[in-house]
Parts: sequence; structure tokens; C-alpha cells
Amino acid sequence: MRDLVEIGMGRTARRSYDLDDIDIVPSRRTRSSKVVSTGWQIDAYRFDLPLVTHPTDAVVSPETAVAIGKLGGLGVLNAEGLWARHADAHSVLAKVVGAAKDGAQETELVRLLQELQSASVRMDLLTEAIRTVRDSGVTVAARVSPQHAAELTPSLLRAGVEILVVQGTIVSAEHVARDDDPLNLKDFISDLDVPVIAGGVSDYRTAMHLMRTGAAGVIVGHGYTPGVTSTDSVLGIGVPMATAVIDAAAARRDYLDETGGRYVHVLADGGMSCSGDIAKAIACGADAVMLGAPLAVANEAPGQGLYWTSAAAHPSLPRSRVVAGPRRDVDFKTLLHGPSPDAEGVVNLFGALRRALAKTGYSDLKEFQKVGLAVRA
Amino acid sequence: MRDLVEIGMGRTARRSYDLDDIDIVPSRRTRSSKVVSTGWQIDAYRFDLPLVTHPTDAVVSPETAVAIGKLGGLGVLNAEGLWARHADAHSVLAKVVGAAKDGAQETELVRLLQELQSASVRMDLLTEAIRTVRDSGVTVAARVSPQHAAELTPSLLRAGVEILVVQGTIVSAEHVARDDDPLNLKDFISDLDVPVIAGGVSDYRTAMHLMRTGAAGVIVGHGYTPGVTSTDSVLGIGVPMATAVIDAAAARRDYLDETGGRYVHVLADGGMSCSGDIAKAIACGADAVMLGAPLAVANEAPGQGLYWTSAAAHPSLPRSRVVAGPRRDVDFKTLLHGPSPDAEGVVNLFGALRRALAKTGYSDLKEFQKVGLAVRA
Amino acid sequence: MRDLVEIGMGRTARRSYDLDDIDIVPSRRTRSSKVVSTGWQIDAYRFDLPLVTHPTDAVVSPETAVAIGKLGGLGVLNAEGLWARHADAHSVLAKVVGAAKDGAQETELVRLLQELQSASVRMDLLTEAIRTVRDSGVTVAARVSPQHAAELTPSLLRAGVEILVVQGTIVSAEHVARDDDPLNLKDFISDLDVPVIAGGVSDYRTAMHLMRTGAAGVIVGHGYTPGVTSTDSVLGIGVPMATAVIDAAAARRDYLDETGGRYVHVLADGGMSCSGDIAKAIACGADAVMLGAPLAVANEAPGQGLYWTSAAAHPSLPRSRVVAGPRRDVDFKTLLHGPSPDAEGVVNLFGALRRALAKTGYSDLKEFQKVGLAVRA
Amino acid sequence: MRDLVEIGMGRTARRSYDLDDIDIVPSRRTRSSKVVSTGWQIDAYRFDLPLVTHPTDAVVSPETAVAIGKLGGLGVLNAEGLWARHADAHSVLAKVVGAAKDGAQETELVRLLQELQSASVRMDLLTEAIRTVRDSGVTVAARVSPQHAAELTPSLLRAGVEILVVQGTIVSAEHVARDDDPLNLKDFISDLDVPVIAGGVSDYRTAMHLMRTGAAGVIVGHGYTPGVTSTDSVLGIGVPMATAVIDAAAARRDYLDETGGRYVHVLADGGMSCSGDIAKAIACGADAVMLGAPLAVANEAPGQGLYWTSAAAHPSLPRSRVVAGPRRDVDFKTLLHGPSPDAEGVVNLFGALRRALAKTGYSDLKEFQKVGLAVRA
Repeated sequence: MRDLVEIGMGRTARRSYDLDDIDIVPSRRTRSSKVVSTGWQIDAYRFDLPLVTHPTDAVVSPETAVAIGKLGGLGVLNAEGLWARHADAHSVLAKVVGAAKDGAQETELVRLLQELQSASVRMDLLTEAIRTVRDSGVTVAARVSPQHAAELTPSLLRAGVEILVVQGTIVSAEHVARDDDPLNLKDFISDLDVPVIAGGVSDYRTAMHLMRTGAAGVIVGHGYTPGVTSTDSVLGIGVPMATAVIDAAAARRDYLDETGGRYVHVLADGGMSCSGDIAKAIACGADAVMLGAPLAVANEAPGQGLYWTSAAAHPSLPRSRVVAGPRRDVDFKTLLHGPSPDAEGVVNLFGALRRALAKTGYSDLKEFQKVGLAVRA
Repeated sequence: MRDLVEIGMGRTARRSYDLDDIDIVPSRRTRSSKVVSTGWQIDAYRFDLPLVTHPTDAVVSPETAVAIGKLGGLGVLNAEGLWARHADAHSVLAKVVGAAKDGAQETELVRLLQELQSASVRMDLLTEAIRTVRDSGVTVAARVSPQHAAELTPSLLRAGVEILVVQGTIVSAEHVARDDDPLNLKDFISDLDVPVIAGGVSDYRTAMHLMRTGAAGVIVGHGYTPGVTSTDSVLGIGVPMATAVIDAAAARRDYLDETGGRYVHVLADGGMSCSGDIAKAIACGADAVMLGAPLAVANEAPGQGLYWTSAAAHPSLPRSRVVAGPRRDVDFKTLLHGPSPDAEGVVNLFGALRRALAKTGYSDLKEFQKVGLAVRA
Repeated sequence: MRDLVEIGMGRTARRSYDLDDIDIVPSRRTRSSKVVSTGWQIDAYRFDLPLVTHPTDAVVSPETAVAIGKLGGLGVLNAEGLWARHADAHSVLAKVVGAAKDGAQETELVRLLQELQSASVRMDLLTEAIRTVRDSGVTVAARVSPQHAAELTPSLLRAGVEILVVQGTIVSAEHVARDDDPLNLKDFISDLDVPVIAGGVSDYRTAMHLMRTGAAGVIVGHGYTPGVTSTDSVLGIGVPMATAVIDAAAARRDYLDETGGRYVHVLADGGMSCSGDIAKAIACGADAVMLGAPLAVANEAPGQGLYWTSAAAHPSLPRSRVVAGPRRDVDFKTLLHGPSPDAEGVVNLFGALRRALAKTGYSDLKEFQKVGLAVRA
Repeated sequence: MRDLVEIGMGRTARRSYDLDDIDIVPSRRTRSSKVVSTGWQIDAYRFDLPLVTHPTDAVVSPETAVAIGKLGGLGVLNAEGLWARHADAHSVLAKVVGAAKDGAQETELVRLLQELQSASVRMDLLTEAIRTVRDSGVTVAARVSPQHAAELTPSLLRAGVEILVVQGTIVSAEHVARDDDPLNLKDFISDLDVPVIAGGVSDYRTAMHLMRTGAAGVIVGHGYTPGVTSTDSVLGIGVPMATAVIDAAAARRDYLDETGGRYVHVLADGGMSCSGDIAKAIACGADAVMLGAPLAVANEAPGQGLYWTSAAAHPSLPRSRVVAGPRRDVDFKTLLHGPSPDAEGVVNLFGALRRALAKTGYSDLKEFQKVGLAVRA
């Protein structure tokens, strides 16, 4: 039953599945969507929606972090993004958006982002941004890369960050570099007082190692977005999300057993473009989803319909395009809670999740992780 | 041989098949199509064709229910559709069709349908519609949702409905709501004197539970129509029809054994766009097919070539687009019985079914359920 | 290893493969294409090429049957086609071609073919056509349908037919009709002095039954041509050619054993659009290939680039479109023997076959039937 | 686990995988790309990059062989190409490029290449070309076909070739021809003082036989390039590269054991269009990659953006189109070493490879051959 295949003599590979390859199978009594909860709690923080934002400047500004927080999710500021480097981040972003509207080619947009990204991180701007979120009363989260985690974290904590996200394309429990000491996440986390969410990972073993560092949550995937990110064609590394999330959930279960009760959350990041994909990610075992592109269609999104991830600004090997998505004239509230004006599955994202639970007879997300799945032939 | 795959650690999914994934395999003597029967009987009602209409306003009006009845099938009026809410349903539908012809966007068409659908069901209109069908001498059937079954059914019976269809996207033997008592289909059906067809379901277990309620027929699927319905992208719920029909047929067989002889009919609803798909659905074990979009191309169809299902008018989460299909200038008679003017497989739907039986050497539908199948690599 | 899958509870289907799904795998020493033979012999008739024409009016006229015979293949006249019904078949075909060039819709072309096909078969025309071929010195073959085999065959034999092809979409050893006696192929063939090629079939059992009728050759498939024939969407019957040919070759082997030495030829008909497909069909075990559309691109083809099969003219259920293919300005000689002006794989069809044998180290077709195959993931 | 399938009765085929079918799976600690090596050594020759050029005139001239050598790879001149036949090869190529720019059809371009290729190989030109490369100080390599290996090699050696490439579409240890003695590669190689790289092969057995001839390296594949080469549609021979490379690597391992230590290099040729594919080929066990089309986008490429392989000029059965790829305005240095101006995966090919090693925690290519792989469902 273990789905190993010999893809050549003496070499096996595991057959792996995308969210597109699977279907949710209702097989119980049904339920009204009014008697269903989509609540999620990590550490001391409780959210109405199992939603964390992918930390891209295209979606998250201090203002939108607040907006999403008020709507029930968790906005994550990129502490190494444009908001941390430019006092006039709004006009800097307007420049990117304007260039795209004027028909700039992708290489020009990438060059512009690289240039903007080459400015230094300014602690004063970062502190101000975080305070803006904090003052609104919503939970404050920020993302750092493994490379700059040690350097940036103290200031972030002083500024009031409540949840720290340590996120790179691929993050391991230990990173080897030439000149510096390797970042040892376990030591790093044990010194902190706030919960840490770390990733991305794509397999059981790395997920397990990250859980053992003391992380409160592990991110699965690296924000794969069809037509936008290109980690697969650039590096040969793709993450079939259904299998990856299921494997991380298995690590969560084994780690829970190993520790006699420490529950580490699994966050799915990437491969979700409609509400059905969100339902499938939870069905595979995710505790919450990390969304980027699906949120970029909102009127309030700083990218104004443009979407890219931080990999777009890599100085020698960009792995994200800068892509203009379709505009839908919806605000975050409608995007998350509906009503949807059409049948496309991209608006009322969490109303749809609630209904998926109802149609399959589950009353909360944790239960729904057990729903039956079929795989397409 | 059981086609279970481990799609991630500790999580199995069944490999499931669409009608497109399979082929019918002739392996016997051949037969003239003149010595073949496509007759179907459910309860006391006998039909020349194994055809039930999907209860959408785009296809079924009182007039077309009569027409399809006279041609050998069973038309099902949606008791919660526009014919039950608007005295001038014809002009109301003309408004939708006109808006589409004038190039209205999908969101506008959805909004229009939502608005029209928000009018109350009027028992007088419903009664009149049913009487129209009844007076013509064909079998009278109407569809109610599980939510309104209890409320609407008495009037429907009084008006003369002979077969009741209780149909929602996903219907279970028991539906849990907050304020109301759950609808218990078993109690509901046992109180009725007319046969009930209920669904949709997509797995063995739910099919079996519905059979145990006393239903005369169980609907498999929810009218999936490529490019129109979006239950898969909105809710993550897709129904690979070949597998779903085969599973329901297995439930029928086991239930037959369990009851010592009660035969519950299996109706396939969705995933069929050409006559070959109809043949495959029967080959998988369906006793009859429920067709929507394939009938919408007929000149008499109220939608005049537009197609949508009742899910288009959902107030917060529509799951059906309103789509203009190709016009073919055929009437229902030609559509069902031929001749076909071309090789597209969308006209002469049941002449083609008859020929499929003939080419594979079977003389009736029940036998044909055993024809050999191949699955595409 | 038997590739059976349970596609639903209690129902298995065999996984079946198209020629597109497989690759030929070279694994021996290589060979010059000059030391390779593509010769084929059935009964007393020897051919330089393993080529039989699909009996469509679009490709085969008396003249092109001669031309193909002289180039090493076997042209098969359709004894129920336009050449047998119209004294002025050339101008009748010119009408079809002209209508297509004038932009006639598919339904009009089908109607025109139906009308032309409704004229009666004239024995005088048929006799004259066959004599034309015979006088040229090439082998004379004609096709009849199972329905008209008994009626037409005596005249065909008198006119000089040397090989008889009894061909329908699906042909079985026994055909049941209401009014007539069933055609019993075994009795029919045993009364004849000429070798009979019969089909199409798509599975082992029907192939075996046809072999037992005394047929000299069995046709596998029904001339499936992508974009042209629609047996799959109309009837649900598709024929994955790799599997079907391999199965028929297994029947040939078992029948050879059963009879202590009678070798019945397997002819693959359909699913081949380039020379690589021809090589794959032989690699799967075909003794010869039956080609239609690939020959229609030749300058001499009566259809002048239009292609259709006889199923296009069915009065109530056409199963072939009338399609204009790309013109390539090549004659039959170049089409079959090269040189090819480009890398498209559609010219020099049998030079390519010769080279495929050479590259894989085989010196004749019978040996080449054992070449290694891989299947695409 | 052996992935054999019965594709028809009594006939098995191995399920085979393309590079597109697989993903690299990170599962270890990560590493800075600065502490990673992409060095490769074959015989006495050491290279910074595991890069060998496919010997096509579209990419390799004496000048570009030097350029690529200086950038860390190995340029291979085609000793039977235009540089060996025309003193004015630059203007001859300009003619091809010009014709393409003027909109010449494919058949015209093929005819032009056939004509140019019909000139005789001139030893003086060949000698001069090789000396040009030699004088620059980089390693000198040239390709001959099996047919002309015996004739051309002595002159090539005299001119200073250091590595000989014997390459045809499919090369076996022994080639049978009518008039000539078969080329026995083993005898041929044992007489030489320079290392020989030979191929292409596509299976374990042929790879093993080639290794036993004494070859220093074996080429897997025949330069398959999507949209350009058509060996699959012309001959039915396709090479799923992931499986083929893994199988050849298995032969390398077994041959190493058989000989007590002779390590024969595996070079992957074809099926790679982006840097991720290069990483996957190495991950499957290739020691180096042979690139054609991916290099043709460089400004210095003689084909100026046109790409074709030597199979384009075959006199009767061309198997390569002449295709204009997208221009990217990059030189070889940027193409190989970056920086990349965008996220397309086609620039900074080996910087990306280095990063793929880093992200998966490997420090050299040999280790990286063990990285985990997943296969797409």
C-alpha cells in the first residue's frame, strides 16, 4: 500500500499528490453550515479563521495586517520586505504597480524589485510598522529569514511581535554556511519567549526536526503559486502539497506521542488557488493555511492586483514572477466571508470552507482532518 | 486489487474514475439495434427511455416536462424553482436569456437569478404547473430540497405528483440543523404513498443509508457539468462518476440481499455530455440517467441554450455558472431519438445507447450493466 | 502483474494502453537500414510493405488501389462506397470536396455524403472498378459489410477479387438480427475460395472467435482517427490500440497452438498518425497496418485532402466527421518511400519503419514484434 | 516494486519516467551555496561545470567551444558538421539564419541544411578548427558518427583532439552493415590513447555493453528537445530520461563492481530545458549533462537563436526541426553563471544547480546523486 515506485533500476521514488489530484468524499450525515466552527488556536492566540498570510509585500502592509486580523486571520509582516526598508513604502509600491501598468517587462519589474530590496532594513521603520499593528489590538506577527533571524529578532520582540515566523524557501533545523556559525534553530527558539512558526518543509523528516526545535508551528511548502513561483523549474524542487501536508501531519502525530502531548501546528503554504483547495489542505491535516495570491485580488492589497513573492527580488536567481491577476472588485471582508458574486470559488473563501465541513458532516477543523479522500485516476 | 493508495504517511485514498477514464469493451456476438430495448421501470412507472431530467429551470418547464414524458422519459419540475415563484415564469426566463444575449457578465446573471429566486414559492402556481403535466397523461414528478421537503410535499401530493424527488447537492439520511429538527428521511418517506427518489450521494455508505430510508431510487452525483458547476473548486468535493455509480450499484446489490429483494434504482446525475457517456453510466450500473445540460440544447428548452443549475442562485456561495452552450437547431424528439445530423455524439442520445447495446451484444439495460470495461492508462 | 484495477466496488477493468502511451526501447546491436526487410505475406500474396488501406472513398479509388499496389501495399476498395454507386464517382467526390472548399458546415457535408450513399450499389460499376485494379496486375481486394456480405460477395468473386475484407465498426463471429438469419461468418468463409480478412475487433475473445471462422486476417480497431471518428463519444466504445493489438496477437499465438499451425494475421486499423505509430503497432504484434487518414494527404487521394470514413454517411448516427487535413504536396510514392522533406513523421512512412527496425537491431517485421516496450508514467 | 505492467496479454512494459514526472525532495539540513562544488572530472580532465555541449552547429563553433571551455564546460565540435565542410562556415550559417528570418518554411530550411551538409568533410578545415580550440588552452573534444569514426579519428587525433565523442541517435557496441565490416567499438577504443565518450543509449543493457567497450563515458538519450527533435513520432523511439539515466547509473555501478573499480561516466543528453531539469538529471545519477537548445539562446551561439540538431540534415528522414527560440540577450557567461534577470529557470543554469545542492544539503555532485525523489501522481 506504501506507494513507492521503482522509477529506474535500484531507485525508488514515492508517488506524491497535489491538492488537484484529490477529492473530498462526503460519507456521513450532513449538517447546517450554521452549526460549524472554523476557529483555530495556536499557543495563546485564537483566530476565527485558520488563515495566516504569506509574508509578501504584495499582500501585507501594516494596514492590511490589521484588516486581516480584524476579520479573523493572522497577518504576517515581512520584516525584510519593503515596509522595513523604505519610509515611503506606499509610493515605492505604487512605482512597481505603475511600471506594470505601463507595460514593463518582467525583467524590468524584477530589476526594480531587486533595486528596492537592496536598501537596508531600518529598525525604526520596522518598529513603527509593528506598533501600528499592535495598536489596533490584533495579534502581531513578523517573518524573518533564517539568515537574518538572529540579527533582527531582538528588535522585533522589543517592538511587540507576538508570533515570530522564521521562513525561507526551504528551512532546516540546522543551516551550514562557510563563514558564520550555522543557525541552530533549537537554540534560537529556546531563547525566545514568543511562539515561533518555521518553514517551509516538504517532508516528514524535516518537519519532525523542526518540531523538535520547539517551534509552535511548521510551514509546509514554499508558497507555490501557479504561473508565479518557479522553484520547480529553477531548482527541480516541487512540493506536491497533499502528500507534503499529510506527511507533516504524520510528524505532528508522532511528535505528539514522542513528547507526551506537545501539539505542533501544521500550516500549508502554497498550491491553493480556490476555496476548494483550502478545504482539501485542511482535509489533508493542515491546522491552518497560509495564503498569498488568493488574497492579492482584494481591493486593499498593496500590490493592487500584482502578485509576487519575496523570491522575485533575489539578486542572482529570482524564483518568482511579478504577475497581474484578475481584479474582482472585492474587499478583504467579502473575500474571506462572502457573499460571492459568482461560482468561481475565489470569493467567500472561508464561508466555502464552513460549507464544506457542513456538507461532509463535520463540526470543526480538527474533526474535518479525518474526512475521506479519493484520488483521481 | 482494491485500488487504495497511500497518498501520504498513514493516509489512504481510493483511486476513483470518471466516465472519461473508461471505455466499453465489446466482446460478444453483435446484434441488430432493432432487437434491443432501452425500457426502464421504477415502481409502477414504466418508461421507454432511462431518462430523468435534472430539475433545473433551464430545461424543465411544465410544457417540456410533458414533451419529455411523451418522448419516453421523465421530466422533473423543480418545486422550488422559478415556475413555482413567478406567474410569468416564461417572461422572467426571457429576461435572463435576454440579459445573457445582451452580453451581461456572469456576476450580473447570477445576481438576476438570485433576485428572481428570492420570490416566495406560491402553492397556486406549483399546483397549476403540476396539473398541466398531469393533464397531459405523462408521469408527474417534482423535486424538493431536503430543507423544504416537509413543508412542500403535502401540497405537491395533493396537486397530483406521482414521483417525488428529494434532491440537494449532497443529501444524507439525516441532516443536522441548529434550530429545526433534523430531517429524518426514513420517517418522511414511510409516511408517503408515492415513490421517492433521493440524492445526490457519492459513496457506497451514503447510498446504502438512503436505500434504507425506503427510497425507490438514489441519485448519484450532483449534476456536475464541465464549465458550469463548480462544486469541486468551491468545496473541494468532486464526484468521479464511474466509481460513484459502481459503488452505488454495489450498495443496491447488498441492499437487495439484505432485504431479500427490494431493488432500489440508481440514477446517475452529472458528468455526461455525450451519448457515449450515457452508455458508460449504464454500463457502470446506473438504471437511468439524469440529464441537464445535454437537454438544454433543444429548441424547446426554456433556457434557450443557456444552462445553469439551481446552485447558481445561492445567495452567498453560488456553485453554478450561467453558460450559453452551442445551439444545434434540434427539437427534443431529434435530440433523444435522432437522426443526428453530425458525428458529435450530442444528438440521437438514446438511439446511440440502443446501438451501443447492439454492438456489444446486449438486449436490455439490466444485462448491459455487465458489459466489460477498460480503463485508460 | 495482470493490470486489473478495481474501478469501483466489485467491478474491475483492465488498464489499457494507446500507442501514444508506449515507447519502443532499443537494447541490442544496431543495424544498417539497408539490411532490413519490411516484407509481408498473407496467404499466397506477398507485399513489400505491411500496408493495407482503410476502405474509405477518401483514399481508395480504383486508380489509387493500383498505385498503392504498385508501391508495395494492398489497396482495398469499399464495395459499398461511392465507386460502387455512382458512374461518375470522380465528379461526385469533386462535389464533396468543392462543398468543403466553399466552407460548407459539417452537417451539410454529412448530409451530402448520406444522399450520395443512398444510391444503390450497381454491380456493373463494381465489376468495372475491380477489373481496373485486376488489369493492372496488383492484388485485388474489396471490402463488404457483414450486413451485405452474403449478397455482394458472389459478384465480387466473379469480378476477380482475390482478398475479401469483411469489415464493420465491430464485427463478431455471429450477428443477431430480427428478420434475417444471423450471418455466420464461419459458414460464409468456408464456402469461399479466397482469403478473408475480417474485423474490427478490440479484444482477445472476439479476435479468437474470428480466427476460428477461418479468416486469414483479423482487423483490430475501427479506424480511429483523432478529430475525425467519434465512436468513443457516440457509443462509449474506444479501442486503446496497443493493448488491443497485443491481445489479438495473443489470440493468434493461442490459435496457432490450438490448430497446430494456422497463422492468422493481425491488422491494426486506427490510432496511427505518424510513422512512429506504425512502428509501435508492429512492435505490439501487428503483421500489417491499415491506414486511412495518413494516406489522405497524398496528391492522388480522391478526397483531395478531405478525410472521412464510411461511418460519416450513417443515416441516423454518423460517427465520422469530414475533415480537411493539412496538404503536404507529396505523392503516394514519397509518402510511403520518401524522402521526407521535414521532421514531422508523416512522410516516408515505411522508410521510417525500416529505420526503426535498423536502430533496434531487427531484420524483419516478425522479429521486430518482440522489441522491448516502455510505458509512459 | 519493480514497475512492470502487463500492457496486453503476455506482454509487459516497464513504466518509465521523464524528468518532468519527478521532483527533488529536500530532507536534510540546508547549506550555503558558497560551500558547494559543481566540479566534474573525466579521465585526466577536470571541469568546473558538469557541462558538455551537444555537438550541433547551432551551438558549437571553434570560438564557442573555446568560450564554453573557459567558462568551465566542455565544448564538443561536430567533426561532420558545417565547420568541417565549409571554409566560410560563418557565412554559410548566416545564410540559414537569414533564410529563417526571411520566413523560410521548415522544409526550405531542412533542404538548405541538407545541401550544405552534402559538401565533403575537409580535413584541413577540421584540423584548423581543432587547433583553434587547442591553442586557447581549453580541453579539445570532437564528435564523430559511428559510421565515420574509423575514417576520421586518425586525423582528429593528429590535430590534437583530447576527448573523442562517438555519437549517433542510437549507438550500440556493434553495428551491422551490409557492405562494411561492423564497427566494433571495443576494438576501436582499445586502439586509441584518448578517452572516448559514446552514445546515445537508452537502456541498462546497451549502456553496459558500451561501458565494456572501454568508453570513459556513456551518453544517455539523443538530445531530445521538445518541439525540435521528433525521433519519437518518426521512429516510435522515445527516451524517458529519468528512467534512462537511472538505468545507466545502475550499469555504471554494476560495471564498477564487475571491473573492480573502473568508473564510467554517465552523460545525460536531452529532455532538459531549464536549470531544474539539469538538477534532476544529476539527481538521477548523471555525472554531467549534455546541453544543446538551452545554450542556443546565448548571443554568441552560431545559430543566433535558431536551433536544430544534426538529424535535421538527414537526406531522407530528417528528425529535427529548425526552430527559432526566444532570444534573451544573454552571453554564455550569464547563461551559465548568472545573474538571471528573471524567474524562468533558463539563465544562471549552474548557479541554480549549485543552489539546488545547497537547499538539499549536499556539497558535491556525486553526493547529490543520492538525493530523494518523488514522482508525480
